[in-house]
Amino acid sequence: MLLIIMKSPGAVVLMLWLGLLLVAAAEADDVDQLELKYIRSQVQDFETRLRTSEKQMRDLQRKCDKLQEDNSVLKKERDQSKVSFSASLMAQGEISVSHTTNLAFNRIIVNIGNAYNPNTGIFTAPIRGVYFFIVFAFGKGSMPTGAYLYKNEEKIVYAYAYAPSSDYWLKPSNGASLLLEVGDEVCIKVYSGESVYDNWNHHTSFSGHLLFPM
Amino acid sequence: MLLIIMKSPGAVVLMLWLGLLLVAAAEADDVDQLELKYIRSQVQDFETRLRTSEKQMRDLQRKCDKLQEDNSVLKKERDQSKVSFSASLMAQGEISVSHTTNLAFNRIIVNIGNAYNPNTGIFTAPIRGVYFFIVFAFGKGSMPTGAYLYKNEEKIVYAYAYAPSSDYWLKPSNGASLLLEVGDEVCIKVYSGESVYDNWNHHTSFSGHLLFPM
Amino acid sequence: MLLIIMKSPGAVVLMLWLGLLLVAAAEADDVDQLELKYIRSQVQDFETRLRTSEKQMRDLQRKCDKLQEDNSVLKKERDQSKVSFSASLMAQGEISVSHTTNLAFNRIIVNIGNAYNPNTGIFTAPIRGVYFFIVFAFGKGSMPTGAYLYKNEEKIVYAYAYAPSSDYWLKPSNGASLLLEVGDEVCIKVYSGESVYDNWNHHTSFSGHLLFPM
Repeated sequence: MLLIIMKSPGAVVLMLWLGLLLVAAAEADDVDQLELKYIRSQVQDFETRLRTSEKQMRDLQRKCDKLQEDNSVLKKERDQSKVSFSASLMAQGEISVSHTTNLAFNRIIVNIGNAYNPNTGIFTAPIRGVYFFIVFAFGKGSMPTGAYLYKNEEKIVYAYAYAPSSDYWLKPSNGASLLLEVGDEVCIKVYSGESVYDNWNHHTSFSGHLLFPM
Repeated sequence: MLLIIMKSPGAVVLMLWLGLLLVAAAEADDVDQLELKYIRSQVQDFETRLRTSEKQMRDLQRKCDKLQEDNSVLKKERDQSKVSFSASLMAQGEISVSHTTNLAFNRIIVNIGNAYNPNTGIFTAPIRGVYFFIVFAFGKGSMPTGAYLYKNEEKIVYAYAYAPSSDYWLKPSNGASLLLEVGDEVCIKVYSGESVYDNWNHHTSFSGHLLFPM
Repeated sequence: MLLIIMKSPGAVVLMLWLGLLLVAAAEADDVDQLELKYIRSQVQDFETRLRTSEKQMRDLQRKCDKLQEDNSVLKKERDQSKVSFSASLMAQGEISVSHTTNLAFNRIIVNIGNAYNPNTGIFTAPIRGVYFFIVFAFGKGSMPTGAYLYKNEEKIVYAYAYAPSSDYWLKPSNGASLLLEVGDEVCIKVYSGESVYDNWNHHTSFSGHLLFPM
């Protein structure tokens, strides 16, 4: 409280009034000080929380980018993994092949990924991975029925059968899984002195598909 | 500084004191002004950072939702891709089938996805995709051993062998990959005049599995 | 407005000046009050937005962790799913096996995952899942050519053919998909009185690969 002792009564009143104004202002200032103190601590609190939040955000963005990349890889891999072909020797008519470097199975049953060329009979690996191949041959006896699965120039497995008389129809088959590099070629060869036969009934076929990329 | 010239000494003292109060208040106000200025700039800074943060959050949420969706698709695809069956003709006894529309292999070896019906011998594609099928037939000579892989009414590949005498046991096989639509049916047919045989030794079998969905 | 009535002119001037100071201070205080009011509302706004942001951040982190876990599972599954082997009986020379518990195909064509042991001929499932196996046998007539696919002690499918004379070369094959538990063993057995033959031409082979984990 403000105590005022003065002679002039008008001055006394004014002083008192001025004094009260000052007190009110001081009290308002006290309230403001509390408010400011509160705000100051809030501002500090926010600064801390914002910093934390911003750091977490950056971490999370990095995490999400990594996840997105992972998913892209998984999806790309899934899409690239769709490689499968199946073909038999011909759509109609009949044929007996008794010597060829690559047996061209030209009746396409399926050819997802277009890695198999029906004109050449060659499958070319579009991506590195493990593939499964299988050949089903068919032929008349008296001459061996033979179909050899090749990876580039390497002999993999042989589908061979023999009967000494032409009264017999033989159906040898063989297959294997192969680890192929991009561009590796897989095909079926028929050796000289051996043969495979096919007609509208689709006896002789060649299939392959990617098992998984590597 | 406040300079006061007055006659009444009491009034002078009071004036001086009031003046000092005002000066102190003004100085406090100066401090508060600095504080306010600081807070004001912090508030502006926070506003900017919060806006940025909130925008990044929304972007990140969208990104995460997209990733979650991607993963759901990948997981759903993975689960739906678990389709595989294998069956031989019978569990025990022996049988010789010489004409049937669909050969019912009823000794189930595996049937994940239940797409193969052992009562009818028909596999029905549960999802669109590329599937691999293979049939291993078995039969006595003198009659052709024949098993034909069908997709709906379409002839795909033939597993056929022949020997003119019943002293021979023949084992033809064939297989192919097929792009199937949902509901497409795959089965093995035995033509009239041909036969397949099986007994407790499980010679004659039929297998199929999804390679990948499309 | 402040109204002052006093006798002493100096005092009047001073009073007026003091009064004006107070008014200015009060006006400044009014401005500060507005500023404080604004800041106060901003602080409340920030508090709300920060809380929201922090909650969203926690939710998002949880979501991301879940996604990361999902991806780890998908990637782990993908990596573990890379199981495939292919082997033929021997690299060179020739062999005729006419009784064995497990036929040891020791010319490895591929063996991703090393689940196949070329010394014992046994494939041991590294993870629970559905696997596809196929055996291509080869043999001379007069003795049955037989190769039996076993899962542990269970007979699965038989690759068997017979011709009464040694002028014939036979090529039976068989295969099946199997649901295997970790540690389940798959191999090829040749029964007493039967045989398989192979040489540098790789007639007799055994392949297997994981179709999908379960």
